[in-house]
Amino acid sequence: MTRRFAATGEGPLVLVLHGPNLGALGRRDPGLYGALDLDQIMERLAKLAGELGLRVEGLQSDREGELVEALLAAGGRGVAAAVLNPGALAHTSYAVRDAVEAAGIPVVEVHLSNVHARERWRHHLAIAPAAAGVVAGFGPASYDLGLRAAANLLARRT
Amino acid sequence: MTRRFAATGEGPLVLVLHGPNLGALGRRDPGLYGALDLDQIMERLAKLAGELGLRVEGLQSDREGELVEALLAAGGRGVAAAVLNPGALAHTSYAVRDAVEAAGIPVVEVHLSNVHARERWRHHLAIAPAAAGVVAGFGPASYDLGLRAAANLLARRT
Amino acid sequence: MTRRFAATGEGPLVLVLHGPNLGALGRRDPGLYGALDLDQIMERLAKLAGELGLRVEGLQSDREGELVEALLAAGGRGVAAAVLNPGALAHTSYAVRDAVEAAGIPVVEVHLSNVHARERWRHHLAIAPAAAGVVAGFGPASYDLGLRAAANLLARRT
Amino acid sequence: MTRRFAATGEGPLVLVLHGPNLGALGRRDPGLYGALDLDQIMERLAKLAGELGLRVEGLQSDREGELVEALLAAGGRGVAAAVLNPGALAHTSYAVRDAVEAAGIPVVEVHLSNVHARERWRHHLAIAPAAAGVVAGFGPASYDLGLRAAANLLARRT
Amino acid sequence: MTRRFAATGEGPLVLVLHGPNLGALGRRDPGLYGALDLDQIMERLAKLAGELGLRVEGLQSDREGELVEALLAAGGRGVAAAVLNPGALAHTSYAVRDAVEAAGIPVVEVHLSNVHARERWRHHLAIAPAAAGVVAGFGPASYDLGLRAAANLLARRT
Amino acid sequence: MTRRFAATGEGPLVLVLHGPNLGALGRRDPGLYGALDLDQIMERLAKLAGELGLRVEGLQSDREGELVEALLAAGGRGVAAAVLNPGALAHTSYAVRDAVEAAGIPVVEVHLSNVHARERWRHHLAIAPAAAGVVAGFGPASYDLGLRAAANLLARRT
Amino acid sequence: MTRRFAATGEGPLVLVLHGPNLGALGRRDPGLYGALDLDQIMERLAKLAGELGLRVEGLQSDREGELVEALLAAGGRGVAAAVLNPGALAHTSYAVRDAVEAAGIPVVEVHLSNVHARERWRHHLAIAPAAAGVVAGFGPASYDLGLRAAANLLARRT
Amino acid sequence: MTRRFAATGEGPLVLVLHGPNLGALGRRDPGLYGALDLDQIMERLAKLAGELGLRVEGLQSDREGELVEALLAAGGRGVAAAVLNPGALAHTSYAVRDAVEAAGIPVVEVHLSNVHARERWRHHLAIAPAAAGVVAGFGPASYDLGLRAAANLLARRT
Amino acid sequence: MTRRFAATGEGPLVLVLHGPNLGALGRRDPGLYGALDLDQIMERLAKLAGELGLRVEGLQSDREGELVEALLAAGGRGVAAAVLNPGALAHTSYAVRDAVEAAGIPVVEVHLSNVHARERWRHHLAIAPAAAGVVAGFGPASYDLGLRAAANLLARRT
Amino acid sequence: MTRRFAATGEGPLVLVLHGPNLGALGRRDPGLYGALDLDQIMERLAKLAGELGLRVEGLQSDREGELVEALLAAGGRGVAAAVLNPGALAHTSYAVRDAVEAAGIPVVEVHLSNVHARERWRHHLAIAPAAAGVVAGFGPASYDLGLRAAANLLARRT
Amino acid sequence: MTRRFAATGEGPLVLVLHGPNLGALGRRDPGLYGALDLDQIMERLAKLAGELGLRVEGLQSDREGELVEALLAAGGRGVAAAVLNPGALAHTSYAVRDAVEAAGIPVVEVHLSNVHARERWRHHLAIAPAAAGVVAGFGPASYDLGLRAAANLLARRT
Amino acid sequence: MTRRFAATGEGPLVLVLHGPNLGALGRRDPGLYGALDLDQIMERLAKLAGELGLRVEGLQSDREGELVEALLAAGGRGVAAAVLNPGALAHTSYAVRDAVEAAGIPVVEVHLSNVHARERWRHHLAIAPAAAGVVAGFGPASYDLGLRAAANLLARRT
Repeated sequence: MTRRFAATGEGPLVLVLHGPNLGALGRRDPGLYGALDLDQIMERLAKLAGELGLRVEGLQSDREGELVEALLAAGGRGVAAAVLNPGALAHTSYAVRDAVEAAGIPVVEVHLSNVHARERWRHHLAIAPAAAGVVAGFGPASYDLGLRAAANLLARRT
Repeated sequence: MTRRFAATGEGPLVLVLHGPNLGALGRRDPGLYGALDLDQIMERLAKLAGELGLRVEGLQSDREGELVEALLAAGGRGVAAAVLNPGALAHTSYAVRDAVEAAGIPVVEVHLSNVHARERWRHHLAIAPAAAGVVAGFGPASYDLGLRAAANLLARRT
Repeated sequence: MTRRFAATGEGPLVLVLHGPNLGALGRRDPGLYGALDLDQIMERLAKLAGELGLRVEGLQSDREGELVEALLAAGGRGVAAAVLNPGALAHTSYAVRDAVEAAGIPVVEVHLSNVHARERWRHHLAIAPAAAGVVAGFGPASYDLGLRAAANLLARRT
Repeated sequence: MTRRFAATGEGPLVLVLHGPNLGALGRRDPGLYGALDLDQIMERLAKLAGELGLRVEGLQSDREGELVEALLAAGGRGVAAAVLNPGALAHTSYAVRDAVEAAGIPVVEVHLSNVHARERWRHHLAIAPAAAGVVAGFGPASYDLGLRAAANLLARRT
Repeated sequence: MTRRFAATGEGPLVLVLHGPNLGALGRRDPGLYGALDLDQIMERLAKLAGELGLRVEGLQSDREGELVEALLAAGGRGVAAAVLNPGALAHTSYAVRDAVEAAGIPVVEVHLSNVHARERWRHHLAIAPAAAGVVAGFGPASYDLGLRAAANLLARRT
Repeated sequence: MTRRFAATGEGPLVLVLHGPNLGALGRRDPGLYGALDLDQIMERLAKLAGELGLRVEGLQSDREGELVEALLAAGGRGVAAAVLNPGALAHTSYAVRDAVEAAGIPVVEVHLSNVHARERWRHHLAIAPAAAGVVAGFGPASYDLGLRAAANLLARRT
Repeated sequence: MTRRFAATGEGPLVLVLHGPNLGALGRRDPGLYGALDLDQIMERLAKLAGELGLRVEGLQSDREGELVEALLAAGGRGVAAAVLNPGALAHTSYAVRDAVEAAGIPVVEVHLSNVHARERWRHHLAIAPAAAGVVAGFGPASYDLGLRAAANLLARRT
Repeated sequence: MTRRFAATGEGPLVLVLHGPNLGALGRRDPGLYGALDLDQIMERLAKLAGELGLRVEGLQSDREGELVEALLAAGGRGVAAAVLNPGALAHTSYAVRDAVEAAGIPVVEVHLSNVHARERWRHHLAIAPAAAGVVAGFGPASYDLGLRAAANLLARRT
Repeated sequence: MTRRFAATGEGPLVLVLHGPNLGALGRRDPGLYGALDLDQIMERLAKLAGELGLRVEGLQSDREGELVEALLAAGGRGVAAAVLNPGALAHTSYAVRDAVEAAGIPVVEVHLSNVHARERWRHHLAIAPAAAGVVAGFGPASYDLGLRAAANLLARRT
Repeated sequence: MTRRFAATGEGPLVLVLHGPNLGALGRRDPGLYGALDLDQIMERLAKLAGELGLRVEGLQSDREGELVEALLAAGGRGVAAAVLNPGALAHTSYAVRDAVEAAGIPVVEVHLSNVHARERWRHHLAIAPAAAGVVAGFGPASYDLGLRAAANLLARRT
Repeated sequence: MTRRFAATGEGPLVLVLHGPNLGALGRRDPGLYGALDLDQIMERLAKLAGELGLRVEGLQSDREGELVEALLAAGGRGVAAAVLNPGALAHTSYAVRDAVEAAGIPVVEVHLSNVHARERWRHHLAIAPAAAGVVAGFGPASYDLGLRAAANLLARRT
Repeated sequence: MTRRFAATGEGPLVLVLHGPNLGALGRRDPGLYGALDLDQIMERLAKLAGELGLRVEGLQSDREGELVEALLAAGGRGVAAAVLNPGALAHTSYAVRDAVEAAGIPVVEVHLSNVHARERWRHHLAIAPAAAGVVAGFGPASYDLGLRAAANLLARRT
């Protein structure tokens, strides 16, 4: 089931995308992924967005195709930047990678855990070459840092 | 199109998940996959479940995201174990693997054909490390053996 | 969002399938993918189909599962052949490959760009072994050539 | 030291082969391999064989050559099928693989542990392509499931 | 023995190059390569060229160096485009690849069989990155489609 | 020549380490690495540290051994955390990796450029598995985000 | 069970060694391995040995250790050369390779089938670098050619 | 310069092909390749052919294309079998491999030296899968054994 | 032929295992393996064992299975530690590795030659991960150092 | 078409060999290969040879076999050394490598471009291990440096 | 900071070299590396050296270059042999390897931990092929065994 | 110990850098590296520089960091070009590679020996892609040729 988090606040719009299994956040292995669930993470981000003069809007989907669609539609909808946690698709989805390239907006890839310290197959980042940059390993704070990175990229543009 | 097979019988509930292309069972290469279609397989399983004191419920989807969702939702819905035939996703889907890990219930991976005797890329099992075990190569009987394996795992727990 | 292009013309029906990100055609990197959008490509194909005595019908989806479903359903719906541009799924989707094999009709794989001249991971064609053949690198003309190839395959059958 | 377990019961004869280190079963890492020793496993199998209308006979050997000999001799001795736990030879012995192919009877490969969840070198199954199928990960129950699989294969033949 | 097929028709000149073993066409494995021999293929192409307003000229050689020379000389001789079936050299010849790059005209690579569906070493295309595009798998029709692709590339230039 | 940047401000001390070639910052490929030189970056960090209630101290060295020593000595000198830009050593230095492990303080790895979008050998991160996390691709802002990540890690500890 | 074939004839003694599964010759896949059994092959060899002024003696064993022992003992027993068909051990046994090196006599490796035309793992010849040469692919005639090769090697020595 | 050795003797015709660098035989590293030059080798073969009721004809060429042509022409000229020493082309030439397949006559591959005991790149045999079998390592005697192997293959056919 | 060396001396018992080909010690390539034979090596070890307060007992076997058995049986027989020279099995035998793990006593792996300075395939040590440590390259002195290492390990336990 | 450049000057004779595509020099990608054509390069070399007391003679061929022949014939014709630009054959031709070894004279390999800075497949130098040394990356000056290197090698010999 | 340990005792001089991170011994992960610090280890070695009639001198450095220099200078300073623990440089430093080769004295490589039982990258020993031998896995006792090995090598020389 | 060789002569300044172990030149394996020591090589280069209208200055260091520093400082000090013999760092140091890129002057890489004819790990050149070109295999003359190459590069610039 896809979950949407409506945009809040004012200023340029940043889309926060959560990939497969991230709907289970807070219940799944808190030692690795942190104790916050998706609502709490989005709340934190909304508050930080206010401080940074941004609006944030969220989407969680377990389906690769929906993430692709959201990225492709972003530019046309006036989204200024995206923060993307692709979950396990980070390691295999060239379709999402192409969508990131086609989106025409800066995309910051974030990971809750330090993927480089886990199984070998998590070391390969298929999407990252198309992203502006990567933040990984700081739990829910990875999202905050990702939003700040997006703010910085937008500030540099103007 | 996703197909659902309602739960039948009594006792602990076992979810039987069929991945991409398995809706074509009975029509697709019967020499390799057997002559039974999905209805017949689910019927056989329901009968065997009755003998084993279990209930079975089925879901067939060609979409990775729906399989992820079904696995994540299973624990909360009181599902006790799962029998999973991931089809070709068995060889590439780290998203399903993460969902198997996050599900918190024993999952038995089954394959109709002997994947080790086929193309090289079918030898790599991306999901299996997160499963309890694997049954492969016995046609429709792979499902029966998988259900028996699940029954055995549940019996050991109590 | 899935887009459908209704069948036009007379004669055997050819299904034209467009995979992830192809809905953005015309907007995304015209130097690489050409300046035509999907409507224009389908129009061209419809006209060419008329000359070849074929009908064409189209479907664009960013979701692997929908492409699988469309292929599996094709035979039962009287589709005679398919022209398939799998987008980035060409390099990873064994699920689509299995569907091509299961479809029971000739499938011609087409690519707008010359995948062999791009990133290394685009050199691996996961679906192609199950296709009748491949046409790659000629921009929108790849579709025309693909439709002609399909016509040729159908002519040889009779 | 080679150990032999005489045939018991009535019906078609199934040979149960145990490879290197399996003589230590019950003493070696019970958390991984289970608490039953080989006698107990063979007893369980004999009982199950009775229910299935089969006879079982066993052989445990730490020597690759003896397993090869037993497989080659099986057809001539009237053995109908075999259940084979090759131990660590599963990953390297092309000699046993050739013997499985030459035996001319269906062979079911079984493993106590889920080899796919262990060290990388246990993921390569050298013998499995010549087997009818594989059951792995269910402890002593893997043997039971393997015997049922053999029964099913014999039933399909007649 | 090198074979030459003189130019026929009017309009821009397209050179059709056939690499090693293609002199045996019609005799070698007709199930795989088709029943037409090289004369018949060149005749078909000449006829199609007339329809497309092109002239075609042919060369078959089993020697890598002659193909290199023909490509290098093409520009200076007023050849407008080339259709190249490199045979097995497609998989190893970096010398031909360099010649395609140096030729300064669009080159369309064609294959009679679907190389992606054959032995692993036929999946690697060493020349294709330097070609405009690739057509593979349609038997003699691959040449027709290749000529049409060349016509399309020339039309786009003017 | 090793350069040192004295600690400024108050609060827990964070050591900022710059590896080989980073002394050339501001002069070397500004399009890739940004236009700020090391002094400007350290000034920015000092200011940000003030806001976060931290002190920062810097060291730039082209010598692997000095980085190892600085990390090993950090704990004994009361350093609370480190931000480390290892430059090209990120991809080969197991000596620095061991030092990060031995340091006993959280270490955040930062990169000015998106290493995943550059040459293949820059995709392998030899030190990262021992770091708390990684920030890469945001130019000088990578350091700011790295310092914030360190602040967050220190806050979580207390 | 090890089988021995006593020496017959006069002249220098050549030991013919047959590895795992070769006891099944004549019964196992005659299309691949030929219709002769081991007795018939040894008889042919004895006859040919007579013509060449050699004596032959044979040993078949499914056990690697016995082959190693036979090779190590050969020099001390006055064996002048050996013809060795290692069966599937050809691809994995460094123990036999070391024994071939230690034997101090010329060893000719023979294979009934063309190992280079079979599965990939049969292409790697672990023992061959220590042999004088290899003959593969001619069915029972491989042994004859191997014996002639041994005769030639012995003739060159004197 | 290509060298030809006219057919001598009576009976079925066997073509002996020598690839690159073999014209230097007798001068090049005699310890590795033997002291005989090509004339002497062909003389020996002619004599042996007489004993076997065969005629032999020879061709030495340093050019891959000429070897391809000779193989393709062989069937049409009444050649019954071929003995082929491809020299270093053995390790890279898929064009010669295709020609061996297309020739429609049995081809025996021979090597003077034991390629398995030399540099790693000589262990890969690109042509051998298409040959009837391989003889390697016996110096000039490899040719004799190769001719005997050809005689045996021809005898089996009739 | 298996050779046994009876235990001598007093104190904890150390089993010294010699794998394939080590029976040829003293005769086989003395430049590489040293001039001492197995009797002399065991004598030296017995003398050293006396100085260290240990008893030593020896076994040489060319059969993998016997080494496995000896290791599995060691714990039950009161053996305190083992010194193991696996010969070439060091590089392939996961069966021996499993036995080392199952043995439940410290095992020191020794090699006469410096395996890291020889062929590539000797660089891979399949058993070593299960051993306590490795001593390689010092000729017969490797055994002495191995026995001292075992003494040290036993001393640390008490 | 093979091109020959007659020997000029006095002193020891150096053969300058140019492989495939080098006949196009001056026309092909001058930014990469320089603006001089082969005549100009040979003129420069002839002048430099005069200064060094050498004679130079040239051969350009797109055919591997002719390069092999020229190298094999060199020694017999009194050639003292060779400068060889193998073009793309540098990366694949083991036949040329064998000819370099067999030639019995020092051979200096030269490349116009820095092959190490180009595509991955140009990093593998198949011929270089048999050459005296390599000069790469200096445009036409690579030939001058190669001739000086040859002069140096000849001077050292006397 | 480089640490030096002055030579003590009489007899031939043995240099003990400790690489990166070994200055932290006793503090860093005692379960893996042992509880002794470098002073204690050098003391033990000095005592053992006295028993063996040797002098030992020590150097610890985190810098590859200093280890190289120490090895190169050793011969000229009258050092008779060296015991080298290269730390993590063992796996990557070809510079140290060259220095070991150039040193002209026997060098024994030692490791505290069993590198073969740790991460994969610790299995590759880059320096070891140039060393006399390797001792790994016995904690501080590895140094003792290494010194004994050096004594043995020196004794064999005289 | 770092060694410096002061600049001599007039004209543009060329820095000659010698990496690890090159201080031992003349003493280390003269058959491979030549009999000249560094002083003699620098003298030769100074003399040649005079002829070419250049000044040369030298630096030898066993430390990677000092080479990085010297390269980074070169541009600012008015160095016009560099000749770099990186020793074994050529195969691993991405830090030196980045410094070569950042230096902003042409750098010619030289090697005394033909690295392509030595161990496999010397075939990988990590720095060369950033250099202008490479000269390898001519002993001390490699430096002369490298200086001439640098002179040529400088001449082309003006």
